[in-house]
Amino acid sequence: MFKTIEYKNGVVRMIDQRKLPTEEVYAECRDYKEVSEAIKEMIIRGAPAIGVAAAMGVFVGIKDIEAKGFEPFYKEMEKVCAYIAASRPTAVNLFWGINRMKEKAIQNKTDDIKKLKSILENEAMAIYEEDIRTNMAIGEHGEQFIKDGDTILTHCNAGALATAGYGTALGVIRAAHNKGKKISVIADETRPFLQGARLTAWELKKDNIPVTLITDNMAGYFMKKNKINLVVVGADRIASNGDTANKIGTYSVAILAKEHNIPFYVAAPISTLDMTLKTGDEIPIEERDKREVTHLNNKAIAPEGIGILNPAFDVTPNKYITGIITERGVAKQPFTSSLKGLVNQK
Amino acid sequence: MFKTIEYKNGVVRMIDQRKLPTEEVYAECRDYKEVSEAIKEMIIRGAPAIGVAAAMGVFVGIKDIEAKGFEPFYKEMEKVCAYIAASRPTAVNLFWGINRMKEKAIQNKTDDIKKLKSILENEAMAIYEEDIRTNMAIGEHGEQFIKDGDTILTHCNAGALATAGYGTALGVIRAAHNKGKKISVIADETRPFLQGARLTAWELKKDNIPVTLITDNMAGYFMKKNKINLVVVGADRIASNGDTANKIGTYSVAILAKEHNIPFYVAAPISTLDMTLKTGDEIPIEERDKREVTHLNNKAIAPEGIGILNPAFDVTPNKYITGIITERGVAKQPFTSSLKGLVNQK
Repeated sequence: MFKTIEYKNGVVRMIDQRKLPTEEVYAECRDYKEVSEAIKEMIIRGAPAIGVAAAMGVFVGIKDIEAKGFEPFYKEMEKVCAYIAASRPTAVNLFWGINRMKEKAIQNKTDDIKKLKSILENEAMAIYEEDIRTNMAIGEHGEQFIKDGDTILTHCNAGALATAGYGTALGVIRAAHNKGKKISVIADETRPFLQGARLTAWELKKDNIPVTLITDNMAGYFMKKNKINLVVVGADRIASNGDTANKIGTYSVAILAKEHNIPFYVAAPISTLDMTLKTGDEIPIEERDKREVTHLNNKAIAPEGIGILNPAFDVTPNKYITGIITERGVAKQPFTSSLKGLVNQK
Repeated sequence: MFKTIEYKNGVVRMIDQRKLPTEEVYAECRDYKEVSEAIKEMIIRGAPAIGVAAAMGVFVGIKDIEAKGFEPFYKEMEKVCAYIAASRPTAVNLFWGINRMKEKAIQNKTDDIKKLKSILENEAMAIYEEDIRTNMAIGEHGEQFIKDGDTILTHCNAGALATAGYGTALGVIRAAHNKGKKISVIADETRPFLQGARLTAWELKKDNIPVTLITDNMAGYFMKKNKINLVVVGADRIASNGDTANKIGTYSVAILAKEHNIPFYVAAPISTLDMTLKTGDEIPIEERDKREVTHLNNKAIAPEGIGILNPAFDVTPNKYITGIITERGVAKQPFTSSLKGLVNQK
């Protein structure tokens, strides 16, 4: 089995997701700027995976700081954190991963710097390992919604490749599959970056879970033909009222699901929740390079001199969402109270 | 200005739409099998253009028939017609174009074969010229729905490239633009064949009509942001109740438009109506080569060994359609009576 990301001996190693599915090659980041670049260039992507990469990036960035006292050390650490935080704006897990590292440093400010570095290395590793456990718990909570024989539509890739492993939306699917349910998946190709075609199809194939690829604009057609029983997607940021930012096109899928009375689930770790936001209107939406839309395999598919728009995410209002599956259980309408309950659990 | 299709001296010449927008090259068909192949391979596409190509293909196919009497001549002609009719199943204009040629032959069966061939050549030319006039009339009837300052979303290409010239959906847009209305267009790229990116963007750019390209899954996002005032699309076949087959993804756009209270218009010539069909459920949907989905510019974007689906069209039920704009006027709900009225007009 591949590893989406791992840290060893000063190197953050990631499978280069831009090269899949035709090439399985790995990128090695030896400093925090390379990690930040890898996030920006989408060598690694997916909200939980970005959170893990950010934490590892912070550790790679602080491990060689030569400051002796905590204050100068932390000042340097903050620079590293700010640099990584600027890589992408939408996935809240990025900031969550960075903040966990910062909080850990502050909690242990009285330790000597060598000890502190070791504590921070352990924290980055803990974030990595927790993510896999979290996804397995999400799978356990979510697989009840999948019946034997179901076909599940998913958009983008919220799989092992979007996380430290196992996946969120695909974690729910894996859990159902592992329980012996005979299921199949329809994957939206997910333009412009084609995460569905390149990543979701690839990792489900590796796990022998039957998967059929369609273009994004075919989802409605197959819903109308009763070929889809359930939709499950991941999330990049969830506001306190349940409004969910996820890969561009998720909103359209949610509307189509509602029109066809198909349950629409979001699967995401608690770290994806941003309880500081009242609604999804406050979530910043990243606008990416126009070339992702106009070029495919380095060849132009559009004439020059026209307008191009490339928002990377959209926000699905909570009214379209049947449930939000987390590692602590499933939130349902009304989300403002159910999500608060999950956050305050523990 | 380019010509989508033309007939001269035994040759049907078409702009090769597979090569746009990067190359403007022309394909020359010297016999009816080449014309049929050009339709099948989508060198030419778009329901009205297919109708014109079919008529020209029939003429190219019959012009060298050596039979002396009508009966043997017509028997050969029917073979030509059947061959061309097998090229693509969904667009009814294909069969309409062929049938007009057959009917013209039968109407003139007492003429000598040389005269008959000349009559059929004129008929093919008439179909070509009528199509342009028809589109201009569609434009006149439809531009009333576009207000100064509007942004119009269109899907696929129902433009000059989809017709003998001027276009149906894009004819409506051209007419509004020509009246001096300051409008702009958002074009869905329209996977898998990318007619929106390659063709609609290209021809609107040529006409200096402002156009912005998006991927198919962004339409809902921009509707929610109130960036789209109106949707207008073409049609490949319209049942007597108004259910409309058009490029895959049209159905999803129609649902999104309804959810955002945006008017959704279909623009198509009367020849696109198939009054023999009660509803759109009876329209055959072409399933095309999987490679259109899995490969881009000859490079795989998906792993091998997975399922692939590639329906080329979908059917939008009449309840999502605000109006059907034809050369004879605009049909509105209930379509069964309004469309019948237009067909019986004349």
